Amino acid sequence: MSFDTLTHEMLLQIEDELRQTVSSRLYRKELEELLKMVSHHMGWNEENPAARGKRIRPLLVTLTCAAAGGNWLKSLPAAAAVELIHNFSLIHDDIEDNSPLRRGRPTVWTQWGVPQAINTGDAIFTLAHLSLLGLEDTCDAGTALQAAAILQDTCLSLTQGQFLDISYEKQHAVSLESYYMMISGKTASLISTCTELGALVANCSFDLRQCYREFGYFLGMAFQVQDDYMGIWGKEELTGKSAESDLAAGKKSLPVLYGLQQKGAFYQRWLQGPIHPEEAPALAKQLSDEGAESYTKQTADLLTRQALQALEEAQPAGKAGEALQTLALRLLNRAH
Amino acid sequence: MSFDTLTHEMLLQIEDELRQTVSSRLYRKELEELLKMVSHHMGWNEENPAARGKRIRPLLVTLTCAAAGGNWLKSLPAAAAVELIHNFSLIHDDIEDNSPLRRGRPTVWTQWGVPQAINTGDAIFTLAHLSLLGLEDTCDAGTALQAAAILQDTCLSLTQGQFLDISYEKQHAVSLESYYMMISGKTASLISTCTELGALVANCSFDLRQCYREFGYFLGMAFQVQDDYMGIWGKEELTGKSAESDLAAGKKSLPVLYGLQQKGAFYQRWLQGPIHPEEAPALAKQLSDEGAESYTKQTADLLTRQALQALEEAQPAGKAGEALQTLALRLLNRAH
Repeated sequence: MSFDTLTHEMLLQIEDELRQTVSSRLYRKELEELLKMVSHHMGWNEENPAARGKRIRPLLVTLTCAAAGGNWLKSLPAAAAVELIHNFSLIHDDIEDNSPLRRGRPTVWTQWGVPQAINTGDAIFTLAHLSLLGLEDTCDAGTALQAAAILQDTCLSLTQGQFLDISYEKQHAVSLESYYMMISGKTASLISTCTELGALVANCSFDLRQCYREFGYFLGMAFQVQDDYMGIWGKEELTGKSAESDLAAGKKSLPVLYGLQQKGAFYQRWLQGPIHPEEAPALAKQLSDEGAESYTKQTADLLTRQALQALEEAQPAGKAGEALQTLALRLLNRAH
Repeated sequence: MSFDTLTHEMLLQIEDELRQTVSSRLYRKELEELLKMVSHHMGWNEENPAARGKRIRPLLVTLTCAAAGGNWLKSLPAAAAVELIHNFSLIHDDIEDNSPLRRGRPTVWTQWGVPQAINTGDAIFTLAHLSLLGLEDTCDAGTALQAAAILQDTCLSLTQGQFLDISYEKQHAVSLESYYMMISGKTASLISTCTELGALVANCSFDLRQCYREFGYFLGMAFQVQDDYMGIWGKEELTGKSAESDLAAGKKSLPVLYGLQQKGAFYQRWLQGPIHPEEAPALAKQLSDEGAESYTKQTADLLTRQALQALEEAQPAGKAGEALQTLALRLLNRAH
């Protein structure tokens, strides 16, 4: 079974589980519009599958479960849960960041207003946890309770990461340490929970579960740092967004924070206010000259190596194990 | 032990549990401001205890637990959880309703902005569920898992009720049935979960648990309908807000919805736009003449009887049982 065949089968089941979780609880006539908002955000009203996002997180759950020797069908309640958590945070992030578009479509708040959008996010948050409790049926009570504790811890990390992210907007100087804490909360925490939950359902030993968790953690960190790299030096055809856009957007990404610490020409220009898109190429070059490009690249490489090493130690088995490796390499742009 | 002595002891322990739950998870230097937002909302920075609210919900948990023969100290994780859920919903409601003040103090969003306020609400939501999982230590895994399912169901009801409430603002006509569904979700659901969780920790039979749950449900419904009554015909010294304020605020409370259905003089005036405070007394009289006052009063009475009957059936025991009755009567303005 190829990567595509296996993941295609999993993605179908994941989508089914997601729809089932939501529609079984929002079926009443009076709640029709609430269901519509959730469906809009989840991309269920669109022909184009791109509207739904890539469903990377639930796929990490099912693939890890299978690679660790478990029956991945049993992990579906957890897979749906992590995807719902991800989407709850996107709805709230879109309000907090004042973003009118998500995947090229209007965000919930632009279409239905901020009050309904906040509340719809809260509803999806709850649906995630309700979905997770389904592990009591596919596994047992002990597994469900452990999974709940893991997921709740991650949700707290998410809100802590988001708190730091919002705070940074008003802060002049953000330390690199603080930046790593932020992306650990906002990105790596949920990814590591995906792989840990997959391993938990597969009934792995505690040590092996930690190995898979570590893989997810470094995968998330590496992915984020690479995303920051691509946001400044990436090629447009690869990232899908115009290169240097992070500079013009004023995003305090890792290269920018590194550049600010150098207190050189980049720092001086940054202090003077917003950067125009036309300036971005020259500033990207300046940042590179000040060492930010190689620092970011080296960091991404190191994190990638740590992720792949943790995965190797976990000894993922079979076709799912291969697929898990392929997915990791693709996410980290190491696939051919 | 008098009502005051018993509840005072419980309230001290509840406050301790709340602070412990929050501070043990937000102790890092970088999260100081997040802790500050939570503390501000919880009223922990104020001398005046009124800033903290009455903590009715957690008290219903501990009192029910004790009245059902349980050790109420074991129910503290659940008591803290329901209070945190209540406060998460208040933070988000304040944004959704655009309310600058809560208990006479600036709301989180007015002081820290909407993005941080949404995220702080999310953090408190998560802290609530993390607190609840503490039942695994004070009771056992099975109890913790059952409690989690009960609380998550309630959270979904809360968001459904809030969805309806926000929707009503744009709707011309709201049916009484729809109104009852809304307050059942927004108010009664969490109150019934308080009494059910207390009974669950006390290890009651399923039937007895349902009895306590029903008591909470009708208590919540009766309380809300009475609040609607007082919002129009209540005396200022009792409600703490100026009478007729609900009319001037344009709130679609039960008496108003009843009045609109009559299609009489009140309906005609309502159609013409916002009501000025000076008009409110005459309009309150008009509503009363059209039967809204007696309908609302009768409904409140019926719900109150159902609440007290359910409580009687549950046969709450000892000093806690008496205190539970006293609390119910006070909430329903039936105490002397």
